[in-house]
Amino acid sequence: MKLITFDAGDGAHVGLVTDAGVVDLTQHAGVTSLRGLIADGKVADMAAHGNAAADHELDDVTFLPVIPDPEHIWCVGVNYMDHLQEAIDAGLPRSKSEFPMIFGRYADTMVGHKQNLMKAPIVHKLDYECELAVIIGKGGRYIAKEDALSHIAGYSCFNEGSARDWQYHTAQVVPGKNFAKTGGFGPWMVTADEIPDPQVLDISTVLNGQTMQSANTKDMIFDVATVISYVSNISELQPGDVIASGTPSGVGQSREPQVFMQPGDTCEIHIENVGVLVNEIAEG
Amino acid sequence: MKLITFDAGDGAHVGLVTDAGVVDLTQHAGVTSLRGLIADGKVADMAAHGNAAADHELDDVTFLPVIPDPEHIWCVGVNYMDHLQEAIDAGLPRSKSEFPMIFGRYADTMVGHKQNLMKAPIVHKLDYECELAVIIGKGGRYIAKEDALSHIAGYSCFNEGSARDWQYHTAQVVPGKNFAKTGGFGPWMVTADEIPDPQVLDISTVLNGQTMQSANTKDMIFDVATVISYVSNISELQPGDVIASGTPSGVGQSREPQVFMQPGDTCEIHIENVGVLVNEIAEG
Repeated sequence: MKLITFDAGDGAHVGLVTDAGVVDLTQHAGVTSLRGLIADGKVADMAAHGNAAADHELDDVTFLPVIPDPEHIWCVGVNYMDHLQEAIDAGLPRSKSEFPMIFGRYADTMVGHKQNLMKAPIVHKLDYECELAVIIGKGGRYIAKEDALSHIAGYSCFNEGSARDWQYHTAQVVPGKNFAKTGGFGPWMVTADEIPDPQVLDISTVLNGQTMQSANTKDMIFDVATVISYVSNISELQPGDVIASGTPSGVGQSREPQVFMQPGDTCEIHIENVGVLVNEIAEG
Repeated sequence: MKLITFDAGDGAHVGLVTDAGVVDLTQHAGVTSLRGLIADGKVADMAAHGNAAADHELDDVTFLPVIPDPEHIWCVGVNYMDHLQEAIDAGLPRSKSEFPMIFGRYADTMVGHKQNLMKAPIVHKLDYECELAVIIGKGGRYIAKEDALSHIAGYSCFNEGSARDWQYHTAQVVPGKNFAKTGGFGPWMVTADEIPDPQVLDISTVLNGQTMQSANTKDMIFDVATVISYVSNISELQPGDVIASGTPSGVGQSREPQVFMQPGDTCEIHIENVGVLVNEIAEG
Protein backbone atom coordinates (compact mmCIF):
# COMPACT_ATOMS: atom_id res chain seq x y z
CA MET A 1 0.00 0.00 0.00
CA LYS A 2 0.92 3.61 -0.54
CA LEU A 3 -0.32 6.03 2.12
CA ILE A 4 -0.09 9.82 1.95
CA THR A 5 -0.76 12.81 4.15
CA PHE A 6 -2.37 15.65 2.25
CA ASP A 7 -3.91 19.05 2.86
CA ALA A 8 -7.65 18.69 2.31
CA GLY A 9 -8.43 22.33 2.95
CA ASP A 10 -9.78 21.61 6.42
CA GLY A 11 -6.45 20.26 7.66
CA ALA A 12 -4.30 17.20 7.14
CA HIS A 13 -6.01 14.08 5.85
CA VAL A 14 -4.61 10.62 5.27
CA GLY A 15 -5.07 9.01 1.89
CA LEU A 16 -4.67 5.61 0.28
CA VAL A 17 -3.21 5.77 -3.22
CA THR A 18 -4.90 3.34 -5.60
CA ASP A 19 -4.89 2.89 -9.36
CA ALA A 20 -7.99 5.08 -9.45
CA GLY A 21 -6.60 7.94 -7.37
CA VAL A 22 -6.69 8.79 -3.68
CA VAL A 23 -9.18 7.33 -1.21
CA ASP A 24 -9.66 9.76 1.69
CA LEU A 25 -9.18 7.63 4.81
CA THR A 26 -9.91 10.54 7.11
CA GLN A 27 -13.34 10.88 5.55
CA HIS A 28 -14.15 7.19 5.15
CA ALA A 29 -12.31 5.54 8.04
CA GLY A 30 -11.93 8.32 10.62
CA VAL A 31 -8.13 8.24 10.38
CA THR A 32 -6.86 11.48 11.96
CA SER A 33 -3.14 11.12 11.20
CA LEU A 34 -0.77 8.63 9.61
CA ARG A 35 1.32 8.66 12.77
CA GLY A 36 -1.80 7.79 14.77
CA LEU A 37 -2.78 5.07 12.30
CA ILE A 38 0.66 3.51 12.70
CA ALA A 39 0.56 3.86 16.50
CA ASP A 40 -2.82 2.16 16.58
CA GLY A 41 -1.50 -0.76 14.55
CA LYS A 42 -4.23 -0.26 11.95
CA VAL A 43 -2.19 0.26 8.78
CA ALA A 44 -2.92 -3.21 7.35
CA ASP A 45 -6.67 -2.69 7.87
CA MET A 46 -6.61 0.09 5.29
CA ALA A 47 -6.23 -2.46 2.50
CA ALA A 48 -9.99 -2.97 2.79
CA HIS A 49 -10.41 0.46 1.15
CA GLY A 50 -8.32 -0.50 -1.86
CA ASN A 51 -11.32 -0.92 -4.14
CA ALA A 52 -13.25 2.12 -2.93
CA ALA A 53 -14.04 4.90 -5.37
CA ALA A 54 -11.34 7.56 -5.44
CA ASP A 55 -12.10 10.90 -3.81
CA HIS A 56 -9.31 12.78 -5.55
CA GLU A 57 -7.08 12.53 -8.57
CA LEU A 58 -3.53 11.92 -7.41
CA ASP A 59 -2.38 14.94 -9.39
CA ASP A 60 -4.85 17.19 -7.59
CA VAL A 61 -3.85 16.63 -3.98
CA THR A 62 -1.58 18.97 -2.01
CA PHE A 63 1.00 16.70 -0.43
CA LEU A 64 2.28 17.23 3.10
CA PRO A 65 5.33 15.49 4.57
CA VAL A 66 4.38 11.80 4.82
CA ILE A 67 4.55 12.07 8.61
CA PRO A 68 4.08 15.80 9.33
CA ASP A 69 4.55 15.47 13.09
CA PRO A 70 7.12 12.81 13.98
CA GLU A 71 8.41 12.78 17.54
CA HIS A 72 11.94 12.33 16.18
CA ILE A 73 13.71 12.57 12.84
CA TRP A 74 17.07 10.84 13.17
CA CYS A 75 19.56 11.29 10.35
CA VAL A 76 22.69 9.31 9.56
CA GLY A 77 25.68 11.21 8.24
CA VAL A 78 28.22 9.84 5.74
CA ASN A 79 26.64 6.38 5.60
CA TYR A 80 27.82 5.34 2.13
CA MET A 81 31.47 4.50 1.62
CA ASP A 82 31.80 6.51 -1.60
CA HIS A 83 30.26 9.57 0.07
CA LEU A 84 32.64 9.19 2.99
CA GLN A 85 35.54 9.07 0.55
CA GLU A 86 34.43 12.21 -1.27
CA ALA A 87 34.13 13.99 2.10
CA ILE A 88 37.64 12.92 3.05
CA ASP A 89 38.90 13.98 -0.38
CA ALA A 90 37.33 17.39 0.23
CA GLY A 91 39.31 17.76 3.44
CA LEU A 92 36.39 17.40 5.83
CA PRO A 93 37.18 15.91 9.26
CA ARG A 94 35.51 12.54 8.57
CA SER A 95 36.72 8.98 8.96
CA LYS A 96 35.19 5.53 9.01
CA SER A 97 33.71 5.14 12.44
CA GLU A 98 32.76 2.20 14.59
CA PHE A 99 29.38 3.90 15.11
CA PRO A 100 26.83 5.58 12.85
CA MET A 101 27.02 9.40 12.84
CA ILE A 102 23.63 10.55 14.13
CA PHE A 103 22.05 13.98 14.22
CA GLY A 104 18.50 15.34 14.25
CA ARG A 105 16.23 17.46 12.08
CA TYR A 106 13.15 19.16 13.44
CA ALA A 107 9.87 18.44 11.66
CA ASP A 108 9.51 22.01 10.37
CA THR A 109 12.55 21.52 8.15
CA MET A 110 10.52 19.21 5.88
CA VAL A 111 7.99 19.75 3.10
CA GLY A 112 5.87 17.32 1.13
CA HIS A 113 6.06 16.10 -2.46
CA LYS A 114 5.65 18.89 -5.03
CA GLN A 115 5.97 21.58 -2.33
CA ASN A 116 8.78 24.10 -2.66
CA LEU A 117 12.12 23.67 -0.94
CA MET A 118 13.02 27.10 0.38
CA LYS A 119 16.41 28.68 -0.21
CA ALA A 120 16.68 31.41 2.41
CA PRO A 121 18.34 34.60 1.20
CA ILE A 122 21.19 33.95 3.65
CA VAL A 123 21.86 30.45 2.25
CA HIS A 124 24.17 30.29 -0.73
CA LYS A 125 25.03 26.58 -0.80
CA LEU A 126 21.78 24.61 -0.66
CA ASP A 127 22.61 20.99 -1.48
CA TYR A 128 20.53 17.87 -2.15
CA GLU A 129 20.96 14.46 -0.51
CA CYS A 130 18.89 11.46 -1.65
CA GLU A 131 18.10 9.17 1.26
CA LEU A 132 15.89 6.19 1.99
CA ALA A 133 13.53 7.26 4.80
CA VAL A 134 12.54 4.52 7.22
CA ILE A 135 9.29 5.07 9.12
CA ILE A 136 9.04 3.29 12.47
CA GLY A 137 5.95 1.19 13.11
CA LYS A 138 6.30 -0.48 16.46
CA GLY A 139 8.27 1.68 18.89
CA GLY A 140 10.73 0.43 21.43
CA ARG A 141 14.06 0.76 23.20
CA TYR A 142 17.10 -1.49 23.04
CA ILE A 143 15.89 -3.10 19.82
CA ALA A 144 18.15 -5.93 18.71
CA LYS A 145 19.51 -5.65 15.20
CA GLU A 146 17.91 -9.01 14.41
CA ASP A 147 14.47 -7.66 15.33
CA ALA A 148 14.88 -4.19 13.86
CA LEU A 149 13.20 -4.68 10.48
CA SER A 150 10.03 -5.86 12.24
CA HIS A 151 9.77 -2.36 13.76
CA ILE A 152 9.40 -0.69 10.35
CA ALA A 153 6.00 0.52 9.11
CA GLY A 154 7.25 1.58 5.71
CA TYR A 155 9.60 3.57 3.54
CA SER A 156 9.66 6.87 1.72
CA CYS A 157 11.98 9.16 -0.23
CA PHE A 158 13.85 11.84 1.68
CA ASN A 159 15.79 14.80 0.32
CA GLU A 160 18.00 15.73 3.27
CA GLY A 161 18.55 19.27 1.99
CA SER A 162 21.57 20.90 3.56
CA ALA A 163 22.80 24.49 3.80
CA ARG A 164 26.47 23.70 3.35
CA ASP A 165 27.57 27.25 4.15
CA TRP A 166 25.98 26.90 7.62
CA GLN A 167 26.72 23.21 8.16
CA TYR A 168 30.41 23.82 8.77
CA HIS A 169 30.23 26.89 11.01
CA THR A 170 31.29 24.56 13.83
CA ALA A 171 31.89 20.83 14.25
CA GLN A 172 28.14 20.31 14.69
CA VAL A 173 26.20 19.98 11.42
CA VAL A 174 22.78 20.66 12.97
CA PRO A 175 22.38 24.30 11.82
CA GLY A 176 22.96 23.48 8.16
CA LYS A 177 20.59 20.53 8.47
CA ASN A 178 17.76 22.46 10.11
CA PHE A 179 16.94 25.38 7.87
CA ALA A 180 13.19 25.74 7.64
CA LYS A 181 11.62 23.85 4.71
CA THR A 182 14.86 22.66 3.14
CA GLY A 183 14.04 18.94 3.14
CA GLY A 184 11.61 16.88 1.09
CA PHE A 185 9.73 13.85 2.46
CA GLY A 186 7.40 11.85 0.25
CA PRO A 187 5.46 11.35 -1.85
CA TRP A 188 4.09 8.47 0.24
CA MET A 189 4.87 5.71 2.67
CA VAL A 190 5.18 2.36 0.91
CA THR A 191 4.28 -0.23 3.53
CA ALA A 192 7.07 -2.50 4.65
CA ASP A 193 5.44 -5.65 3.26
CA GLU A 194 6.26 -4.34 -0.24
CA ILE A 195 9.97 -3.87 0.55
CA PRO A 196 11.16 -7.19 2.01
CA ASP A 197 14.79 -6.05 1.89
CA PRO A 198 15.67 -2.32 2.22
CA GLN A 199 19.29 -2.99 1.24
CA VAL A 200 18.77 -3.77 -2.46
CA LEU A 201 17.22 -0.52 -3.75
CA ASP A 202 18.58 1.74 -6.45
CA ILE A 203 18.57 5.35 -5.27
CA SER A 204 19.35 8.52 -7.19
CA THR A 205 19.03 12.28 -7.35
CA VAL A 206 18.05 14.00 -10.59
CA LEU A 207 18.52 17.78 -10.68
CA ASN A 208 16.96 19.57 -13.64
CA GLY A 209 16.96 16.30 -15.57
CA GLN A 210 20.58 15.43 -14.84
CA THR A 211 21.49 12.47 -12.62
CA MET A 212 23.69 13.77 -9.80
CA GLN A 213 23.74 10.80 -7.40
CA SER A 214 23.21 7.16 -8.34
CA ALA A 215 23.78 4.28 -5.97
CA ASN A 216 22.19 1.29 -4.30
CA THR A 217 21.23 0.93 -0.66
CA LYS A 218 23.42 -2.19 -0.47
CA ASP A 219 26.35 0.20 -0.18
CA MET A 220 25.32 1.66 3.17
CA ILE A 221 28.10 1.45 5.77
CA PHE A 222 25.57 0.83 8.56
CA ASP A 223 22.49 -0.95 7.31
CA VAL A 224 18.98 0.07 8.31
CA ALA A 225 18.73 -2.61 11.00
CA THR A 226 21.99 -1.51 12.61
CA VAL A 227 20.92 2.14 12.65
CA ILE A 228 17.53 1.35 14.19
CA SER A 229 19.22 -0.73 16.89
CA TYR A 230 21.80 1.99 17.62
CA VAL A 231 19.27 4.82 17.83
CA SER A 232 16.97 2.75 20.03
CA ASN A 233 19.76 2.57 22.60
CA ILE A 234 19.54 6.34 22.99
CA SER A 235 15.88 7.06 22.54
CA GLU A 236 12.58 5.26 22.94
CA LEU A 237 11.60 4.98 19.28
CA GLN A 238 8.01 6.04 18.67
CA PRO A 239 5.55 5.00 15.95
CA GLY A 240 5.98 7.46 13.09
CA ASP A 241 9.58 8.28 13.93
CA VAL A 242 11.71 8.80 10.85
CA ILE A 243 15.23 7.60 10.16
CA ALA A 244 16.93 9.19 7.16
CA SER A 245 19.51 6.57 6.36
CA GLY A 246 22.25 8.59 4.68
CA THR A 247 23.24 9.65 1.19
CA PRO A 248 25.72 8.31 -1.38
CA SER A 249 28.36 10.26 -3.31
CA GLY A 250 27.63 12.94 -5.87
CA VAL A 251 26.40 15.71 -3.59
CA GLY A 252 26.79 19.20 -4.98
CA GLN A 253 29.48 20.32 -2.56
CA SER A 254 31.82 17.53 -3.68
CA ARG A 255 31.49 18.10 -7.43
CA GLU A 256 33.95 20.05 -9.52
CA PRO A 257 32.70 22.62 -10.07
CA GLN A 258 30.36 22.61 -7.12
CA VAL A 259 26.62 22.60 -7.87
CA PHE A 260 24.04 24.06 -5.50
CA MET A 261 20.29 24.24 -5.87
CA GLN A 262 18.88 27.54 -7.09
CA PRO A 263 15.37 28.98 -7.20
CA GLY A 264 13.56 27.50 -10.20
CA ASP A 265 15.49 24.21 -10.09
CA THR A 266 13.63 20.91 -9.86
CA CYS A 267 15.11 18.18 -7.69
CA GLU A 268 13.91 14.58 -7.84
CA ILE A 269 14.75 11.71 -5.50
CA HIS A 270 14.16 8.29 -7.08
CA ILE A 271 14.10 5.12 -5.02
CA GLU A 272 13.39 1.75 -6.59
CA ASN A 273 10.03 0.27 -5.52
CA VAL A 274 9.39 3.32 -3.33
CA GLY A 275 8.72 6.23 -5.67
CA VAL A 276 9.86 9.60 -6.94
CA LEU A 277 9.88 12.71 -4.75
CA VAL A 278 9.80 15.96 -6.72
CA ASN A 279 10.43 19.43 -5.31
CA GLU A 280 11.07 22.77 -6.91
CA ILE A 281 13.35 25.24 -5.21
CA ALA A 282 12.08 28.71 -4.36
CA GLU A 283 13.62 31.77 -2.74
CA GLY A 284 12.31 32.65 0.67
CA MET B 1 5.95 35.69 38.19
CA LYS B 2 6.90 32.05 38.46
CA LEU B 3 4.91 29.68 36.26
CA ILE B 4 5.07 25.89 36.39
CA THR B 5 3.75 22.92 34.48
CA PHE B 6 2.65 20.11 36.76
CA ASP B 7 0.93 16.76 36.61
CA ALA B 8 -2.48 17.20 38.18
CA GLY B 9 -3.52 13.58 37.81
CA ASP B 10 -5.76 14.34 34.84
CA GLY B 11 -2.89 15.61 32.73
CA ALA B 12 -0.58 18.62 32.61
CA HIS B 13 -1.80 21.78 34.32
CA VAL B 14 -0.22 25.21 34.47
CA GLY B 15 0.32 26.81 37.85
CA LEU B 16 1.26 30.19 39.27
CA VAL B 17 3.65 29.98 42.21
CA THR B 18 2.75 32.46 44.95
CA ASP B 19 3.84 32.90 48.57
CA ALA B 20 0.82 30.78 49.54
CA GLY B 21 1.50 27.87 47.15
CA VAL B 22 0.36 27.04 43.65
CA VAL B 23 -2.69 28.57 41.97
CA ASP B 24 -4.03 26.16 39.33
CA LEU B 25 -4.40 28.30 36.20
CA THR B 26 -5.81 25.41 34.21
CA GLN B 27 -8.68 25.14 36.66
CA HIS B 28 -9.26 28.86 37.27
CA ALA B 29 -8.27 30.47 33.97
CA GLY B 30 -8.67 27.68 31.40
CA VAL B 31 -4.98 27.68 30.55
CA THR B 32 -4.28 24.44 28.70
CA SER B 33 -0.49 24.70 28.37
CA LEU B 34 2.29 27.12 29.22
CA ARG B 35 3.40 27.04 25.59
CA GLY B 36 -0.14 28.00 24.57
CA LEU B 37 -0.31 30.74 27.19
CA ILE B 38 2.91 32.20 25.84
CA ALA B 39 1.75 31.89 22.23
CA ASP B 40 -1.49 33.67 23.09
CA GLY B 41 0.44 36.54 24.67
CA LYS B 42 -1.48 36.09 27.92
CA VAL B 43 1.37 35.52 30.39
CA ALA B 44 1.15 38.99 31.95
CA ASP B 45 -2.59 38.57 32.52
CA MET B 46 -1.88 35.78 34.98
CA ALA B 47 -0.67 38.32 37.55
CA ALA B 48 -4.34 38.91 38.33
CA HIS B 49 -4.35 35.48 40.03
CA GLY B 50 -1.49 36.37 42.34
CA ASN B 51 -3.72 36.87 45.35
CA ALA B 52 -5.98 33.88 44.76
CA ALA B 53 -6.11 31.10 47.34
CA ALA B 54 -3.58 28.38 46.64
CA ASP B 55 -4.85 25.08 45.29
CA HIS B 56 -1.73 23.12 46.18
CA GLU B 57 1.27 23.30 48.46
CA LEU B 58 4.37 23.83 46.34
CA ASP B 59 5.95 20.76 47.92
CA ASP B 60 3.02 18.58 46.90
CA VAL B 61 2.98 19.13 43.15
CA THR B 62 4.53 16.76 40.62
CA PHE B 63 6.63 18.97 38.38
CA LEU B 64 6.84 18.43 34.64
CA PRO B 65 9.39 20.10 32.35
CA VAL B 66 8.50 23.81 32.36
CA ILE B 67 7.59 23.54 28.69
CA PRO B 68 6.85 19.84 28.15
CA ASP B 69 6.26 20.16 24.40
CA PRO B 70 8.54 22.75 22.82
CA GLU B 71 8.76 22.75 19.04
CA HIS B 72 12.54 23.12 19.33
CA ILE B 73 15.16 22.84 22.04
CA TRP B 74 18.34 24.48 20.77
CA CYS B 75 21.51 23.96 22.77
CA VAL B 76 24.78 25.87 22.62
CA GLY B 77 27.98 23.89 23.06
CA VAL B 78 31.15 25.20 24.74
CA ASN B 79 29.77 28.69 25.30
CA TYR B 80 31.90 29.69 28.30
CA MET B 81 35.58 30.43 27.75
CA ASP B 82 36.75 28.39 30.75
CA HIS B 83 34.72 25.37 29.59
CA LEU B 84 36.19 25.72 26.09
CA GLN B 85 39.66 25.75 27.61
CA GLU B 86 39.03 22.63 29.69
CA ALA B 87 37.73 20.88 26.57
CA ILE B 88 40.87 21.87 24.64
CA ASP B 89 43.03 20.75 27.58
CA ALA B 90 41.25 17.38 27.45
CA GLY B 91 42.25 16.98 23.81
CA LEU B 92 38.76 17.42 22.34
CA PRO B 93 38.58 18.92 18.83
CA ARG B 94 37.26 22.30 19.96
CA SER B 95 38.41 25.84 19.24
CA LYS B 96 37.02 29.34 19.60
CA SER B 97 34.64 29.76 16.73
CA GLU B 98 33.19 32.73 14.94
CA PHE B 99 29.76 31.12 15.40
CA PRO B 100 27.92 29.50 18.30
CA MET B 101 28.00 25.69 18.27
CA ILE B 102 24.37 24.62 18.00
CA PHE B 103 22.74 21.22 18.36
CA GLY B 104 19.30 19.95 19.35
CA ARG B 105 17.68 17.87 22.07
CA TYR B 106 14.29 16.27 21.65
CA ALA B 107 11.68 17.05 24.29
CA ASP B 108 11.61 13.50 25.64
CA THR B 109 15.16 13.90 26.89
CA MET B 110 13.91 16.25 29.64
CA VAL B 111 12.26 15.76 33.03
CA GLY B 112 10.86 18.25 35.51
CA HIS B 113 12.08 19.44 38.89
CA LYS B 114 12.34 16.64 41.48
CA GLN B 115 11.82 13.96 38.81
CA ASN B 116 14.55 11.38 38.33
CA LEU B 117 17.26 11.73 35.74
CA MET B 118 17.68 8.27 34.24
CA LYS B 119 21.05 6.63 33.84
CA ALA B 120 20.50 3.90 31.26
CA PRO B 121 22.36 0.66 31.97
CA ILE B 122 24.41 1.24 28.80
CA VAL B 123 25.53 4.73 29.95
CA HIS B 124 28.61 4.82 32.15
CA LYS B 125 29.53 8.50 31.97
CA LEU B 126 26.42 10.56 32.75
CA ASP B 127 27.54 14.16 33.30
CA TYR B 128 25.82 17.32 34.52
CA GLU B 129 25.84 20.73 32.81
CA CYS B 130 24.27 23.77 34.47
CA GLU B 131 22.73 26.09 31.90
CA LEU B 132 20.48 29.12 31.80
CA ALA B 133 17.40 28.13 29.79
CA VAL B 134 15.83 30.88 27.73
CA ILE B 135 12.17 30.42 26.83
CA ILE B 136 11.02 32.21 23.69
CA GLY B 137 7.93 34.39 23.95
CA LYS B 138 7.35 36.06 20.62
CA GLY B 139 8.50 33.86 17.74
CA GLY B 140 10.18 35.05 14.60
CA ARG B 141 12.85 34.66 11.97
CA TYR B 142 15.88 36.85 11.25
CA ILE B 143 15.65 38.46 14.68
CA ALA B 144 18.22 41.25 15.08
CA LYS B 145 20.52 40.92 18.08
CA GLU B 146 19.27 44.31 19.27
CA ASP B 147 15.68 43.05 19.36
CA ALA B 148 16.41 39.56 20.67
CA LEU B 149 15.77 40.08 24.39
CA SER B 150 12.26 41.35 23.61
CA HIS B 151 11.49 37.86 22.22
CA ILE B 152 12.06 36.17 25.60
CA ALA B 153 9.12 35.04 27.75
CA GLY B 154 11.27 33.95 30.68
CA TYR B 155 14.09 31.90 32.10
CA SER B 156 14.57 28.60 33.85
CA CYS B 157 17.28 26.24 35.05
CA PHE B 158 18.48 23.52 32.71
CA ASN B 159 20.64 20.51 33.46
CA GLU B 160 21.91 19.53 30.02
CA GLY B 161 22.71 15.98 31.10
CA SER B 162 25.12 14.28 28.74
CA ALA B 163 26.14 10.67 28.18
CA ARG B 164 29.82 11.36 27.56
CA ASP B 165 30.55 7.79 26.49
CA TRP B 166 28.05 8.20 23.62
CA GLN B 167 28.71 11.88 22.89
CA TYR B 168 32.06 11.18 21.25
CA HIS B 169 31.16 8.12 19.17
CA THR B 170 31.46 10.42 16.15
CA ALA B 171 32.00 14.15 15.58
CA GLN B 172 28.30 14.75 16.23
CA VAL B 173 27.36 15.12 19.91
CA VAL B 174 23.63 14.54 19.38
CA PRO B 175 23.48 10.89 20.60
CA GLY B 176 25.09 11.69 23.95
CA LYS B 177 22.80 14.70 24.32
CA ASN B 178 19.58 12.84 23.55
CA PHE B 179 19.36 9.92 25.94
CA ALA B 180 15.81 9.65 27.23
CA LYS B 181 15.19 11.57 30.48
CA THR B 182 18.76 12.68 31.04
CA GLY B 183 18.06 16.41 31.27
CA GLY B 184 16.35 18.53 33.92
CA PHE B 185 14.26 21.62 33.13
CA GLY B 186 12.68 23.66 35.90
CA PRO B 187 11.43 24.21 38.47
CA TRP B 188 9.60 27.12 36.84
CA MET B 189 9.73 29.87 34.28
CA VAL B 190 10.61 33.21 35.86
CA THR B 191 9.06 35.83 33.61
CA ALA B 192 11.48 38.03 31.73
CA ASP B 193 10.40 41.22 33.52
CA GLU B 194 12.13 39.89 36.65
CA ILE B 195 15.46 39.33 34.84
CA PRO B 196 16.26 42.62 33.10
CA ASP B 197 19.76 41.38 32.19
CA PRO B 198 20.41 37.64 31.63
CA GLN B 199 24.18 38.22 31.55
CA VAL B 200 24.74 38.97 35.24
CA LEU B 201 23.55 35.77 36.92
CA ASP B 202 25.56 33.47 39.14
CA ILE B 203 25.12 29.87 38.02
CA SER B 204 26.33 26.68 39.65
CA THR B 205 25.99 22.92 39.91
CA VAL B 206 25.93 21.21 43.30
CA LEU B 207 26.29 17.42 43.26
CA ASN B 208 25.59 15.66 46.55
CA GLY B 209 26.22 18.93 48.38
CA GLN B 210 29.51 19.71 46.66
CA THR B 211 29.82 22.65 44.27
CA MET B 212 31.11 21.31 40.94
CA GLN B 213 30.55 24.29 38.62
CA SER B 214 30.39 27.93 39.66
CA ALA B 215 30.33 30.82 37.23
CA ASN B 216 28.41 33.85 36.06
CA THR B 217 26.48 34.22 32.83
CA LYS B 218 28.59 37.30 32.01
CA ASP B 219 31.27 34.84 30.91
CA MET B 220 29.30 33.42 28.00
CA ILE B 221 31.23 33.58 24.73
CA PHE B 222 28.04 34.27 22.76
CA ASP B 223 25.47 36.12 24.84
CA VAL B 224 21.80 35.19 24.85
CA ALA B 225 20.87 37.88 22.34
CA THR B 226 23.52 36.71 19.88
CA VAL B 227 22.40 33.09 20.16
CA ILE B 228 18.72 33.97 19.63
CA SER B 229 19.63 36.00 16.55
CA TYR B 230 21.83 33.22 15.14
CA VAL B 231 19.28 30.45 15.66
CA SER B 232 16.49 32.59 14.20
CA ASN B 233 18.45 32.71 10.95
CA ILE B 234 18.05 28.97 10.64
CA SER B 235 14.64 28.32 12.10
CA GLU B 236 11.41 30.19 12.66
CA LEU B 237 11.51 30.49 16.43
CA GLN B 238 8.22 29.53 18.05
CA PRO B 239 6.65 30.60 21.34
CA GLY B 240 7.81 28.14 23.97
CA ASP B 241 11.01 27.22 22.15
CA VAL B 242 13.91 26.64 24.50
CA ILE B 243 17.50 27.76 24.16
CA ALA B 244 19.95 26.12 26.56
CA SER B 245 22.71 28.68 26.60
CA GLY B 246 25.76 26.58 27.44
CA THR B 247 27.67 25.49 30.51
CA PRO B 248 30.82 26.75 32.26
CA SER B 249 33.83 24.73 33.37
CA GLY B 250 33.79 22.06 36.05
CA VAL B 251 31.90 19.34 34.22
CA GLY B 252 32.59 15.84 35.47
CA GLN B 253 34.45 14.65 32.38
CA SER B 254 37.07 17.38 32.78
CA ARG B 255 37.80 16.80 36.46
CA GLU B 256 40.72 14.79 37.77
CA PRO B 257 39.61 12.24 38.69
CA GLN B 258 36.52 12.31 36.50
CA VAL B 259 33.15 12.43 38.27
CA PHE B 260 29.97 11.04 36.75
CA MET B 261 26.47 10.94 38.16
CA GLN B 262 25.41 7.67 39.74
CA PRO B 263 22.04 6.33 40.85
CA GLY B 264 21.18 7.83 44.22
CA ASP B 265 23.08 11.07 43.58
CA THR B 266 21.31 14.42 43.87
CA CYS B 267 22.18 17.12 41.35
CA GLU B 268 21.15 20.76 41.83
CA ILE B 269 21.37 23.60 39.34
CA HIS B 270 21.35 27.03 41.02
CA ILE B 271 20.77 30.22 39.03
CA GLU B 272 20.60 33.60 40.75
CA ASN B 273 17.12 35.15 40.66
CA VAL B 274 15.82 32.13 38.74
CA GLY B 275 15.76 29.22 41.18
CA VAL B 276 17.13 25.83 42.09
CA LEU B 277 16.47 22.72 40.00
CA VAL B 278 16.87 19.47 41.92
CA ASN B 279 16.99 15.99 40.39
CA GLU B 280 17.97 12.63 41.76
CA ILE B 281 19.62 10.13 39.49
CA ALA B 282 18.08 6.68 39.05
CA GLU B 283 19.02 3.59 37.07
CA GLY B 284 16.77 2.75 34.17
